[in-house]
Amino acid sequence: MAGLTPGATIGILGGGQLGRMLAMAAARLGFATIIFDPDISAPAAQTASRHIAAPYTDLEALAQFAKACDVITYEFENIPLEAARHLSGLKPVHPPVAALESSQDRLVEKRFINSLGIATAPFFEINGAQDLQAALASAGGRGIVKTRRMGYDGKGQALVESPAAAAQAWDELGAHPLILEGFVDFALEISVIASRGADGSFRAYEPAMNRHGSGILRMSIVPAPLPGEVMADAVAMAQRIVTALGYVGVIGIEFFVTRDNALMVNEIAPRVHNSGHWTEAACAISQFEQHIRAVSGLPLGQTTRHSDCVMENLIGDDVEKVPGILLEGDAVLHLYGKAEARPGRKMGHVTRLFPRAGEVDPQ
Amino acid sequence: MAGLTPGATIGILGGGQLGRMLAMAAARLGFATIIFDPDISAPAAQTASRHIAAPYTDLEALAQFAKACDVITYEFENIPLEAARHLSGLKPVHPPVAALESSQDRLVEKRFINSLGIATAPFFEINGAQDLQAALASAGGRGIVKTRRMGYDGKGQALVESPAAAAQAWDELGAHPLILEGFVDFALEISVIASRGADGSFRAYEPAMNRHGSGILRMSIVPAPLPGEVMADAVAMAQRIVTALGYVGVIGIEFFVTRDNALMVNEIAPRVHNSGHWTEAACAISQFEQHIRAVSGLPLGQTTRHSDCVMENLIGDDVEKVPGILLEGDAVLHLYGKAEARPGRKMGHVTRLFPRAGEVDPQ
Repeated sequence: MAGLTPGATIGILGGGQLGRMLAMAAARLGFATIIFDPDISAPAAQTASRHIAAPYTDLEALAQFAKACDVITYEFENIPLEAARHLSGLKPVHPPVAALESSQDRLVEKRFINSLGIATAPFFEINGAQDLQAALASAGGRGIVKTRRMGYDGKGQALVESPAAAAQAWDELGAHPLILEGFVDFALEISVIASRGADGSFRAYEPAMNRHGSGILRMSIVPAPLPGEVMADAVAMAQRIVTALGYVGVIGIEFFVTRDNALMVNEIAPRVHNSGHWTEAACAISQFEQHIRAVSGLPLGQTTRHSDCVMENLIGDDVEKVPGILLEGDAVLHLYGKAEARPGRKMGHVTRLFPRAGEVDPQ
Repeated sequence: MAGLTPGATIGILGGGQLGRMLAMAAARLGFATIIFDPDISAPAAQTASRHIAAPYTDLEALAQFAKACDVITYEFENIPLEAARHLSGLKPVHPPVAALESSQDRLVEKRFINSLGIATAPFFEINGAQDLQAALASAGGRGIVKTRRMGYDGKGQALVESPAAAAQAWDELGAHPLILEGFVDFALEISVIASRGADGSFRAYEPAMNRHGSGILRMSIVPAPLPGEVMADAVAMAQRIVTALGYVGVIGIEFFVTRDNALMVNEIAPRVHNSGHWTEAACAISQFEQHIRAVSGLPLGQTTRHSDCVMENLIGDDVEKVPGILLEGDAVLHLYGKAEARPGRKMGHVTRLFPRAGEVDPQ
């Protein structure tokens, strides 16, 4: 495989914590990085070789960015499609713009998943207040109204369990295209962090069990308490999805697992994913390095792990736990360099390792 | 302990690969970094928040650097003492300037080590051609002439085994202050990567066995094939050394181990050390994070490891092995972002992990 050689430059659209960790992984493989993000205090700028601070709509700045890069990737899925399309005419963009397009619209995404014979929660297209009432009835009187676009971390969502609640949700969110998702009483949620190379090679990390609070990921736990066949099924579904997308890079796929161990895809993120942060501490090759390998045409790394682990997000005031975490002495801490700890803001994460044969004490 | 809080800025004198890895470790703990290095293409500049490119003798640039930093450290021991002293009057500098001073002169360093009751190779101060001939005779006709200052990676050294060779070594190196070290027929070399906090806390990683070629470290192997008592003795000596120095930070101490398992200190490096690069792959807390923790007044991390490992340096043309290493799929590769692979130049390193209970395969 003729991949990029050390010294090449990888462009990253988006300068949040995912871009920051991608930039460090790229540096470890000898690559330079350029972050494109309008925010002059983007966390990724601190660890990248260069930062272009311009709006995603600035075609001239995008062209300048493309000129300086050998390959371009992105760290979040709400990049304007026009920007991604413009860039893909100038330099290779991985993952493909088609993946971005599908993941930006919940309706398109779910139809795509179902088209592969993979289950999702039941869903209904909502184009008016009447649609919503009808859909709620079809869904058994209980469901979640979601904006089709630009939702993340539980934003743009409302649980509705009555016609009155549905009417209120319509008042609040009806200005946007919506869907109603039928409520799934799942036993647990897992995610598969998978990767596909330009040559069609495929690797997935072991699925992690995720715990959410207020719509935000709180913890990922590995191994998940599931039979091996269920985990293998989830990985096989991930492979079908990335193959159908002609995907290149790392993808995060969230699944609901029902009480009888059936799998439904909840959401796809065409990028490195919060529920894969544990790989940085428990695997030789992290999801960040894996993504850099994939988009730069290098062979994918192995996805084995040396330890069991629990990854915990540090959200908002959770940063106050940092002194205690540092005192633990063996917790793998990762902070994102964000100055202000606003409620709901992801400030960092910590992974606690449980090596399978115990650690070796040097003293 | 009242250490720095996230958002603080750590200044790093020297912008080579060690500075680069320190900058990434600092970023992971939420710190900003400023590299001070005259070389505009310093590898560390690519991963740091900022780079001041000025000579170490530029007092004004040093003052500007100090003003922007909360604490200052260094990544190589040949920083001019005047620069370190100037800075230490402006902001805290860790490790202490005294450690820098001792390590810059082989004669001073060995006398210091002996003063702690710790053995070194026999050594002789050489101030003239006659001194050298006399010392060679005292050393049994065999020894290594070394410049007292500025030697590293085998530079400024000559093995002498005859009066004629000694005369030639004098011709080549006599312009510099020299010592003669008696030749030690050691069984193996180990190094201890130790750390001391501002509060006197102490931690050391398990000693690694080192393999050199052409005077340059080639491999570090963990565990070293030595009895536990010998390793414990080496760690205890390291603790005596850092305590005597009032040291704060990570230190690398190389030991010769004789055939009857006696220990002699070969060399002290008051900084993170090449023979500790394995900790990045095999431990929860790497030597780089440990150093950042120490100099910023945070609690030291644990030094346990989850895996056995072998770290291999990639020197000069060794970078041609990179495609093969990437194909291995589970080797932890770290490249330094250096454009040109000159002979003897450290381009990167790779650590192969051997988890003690085997890895877990996700598929």
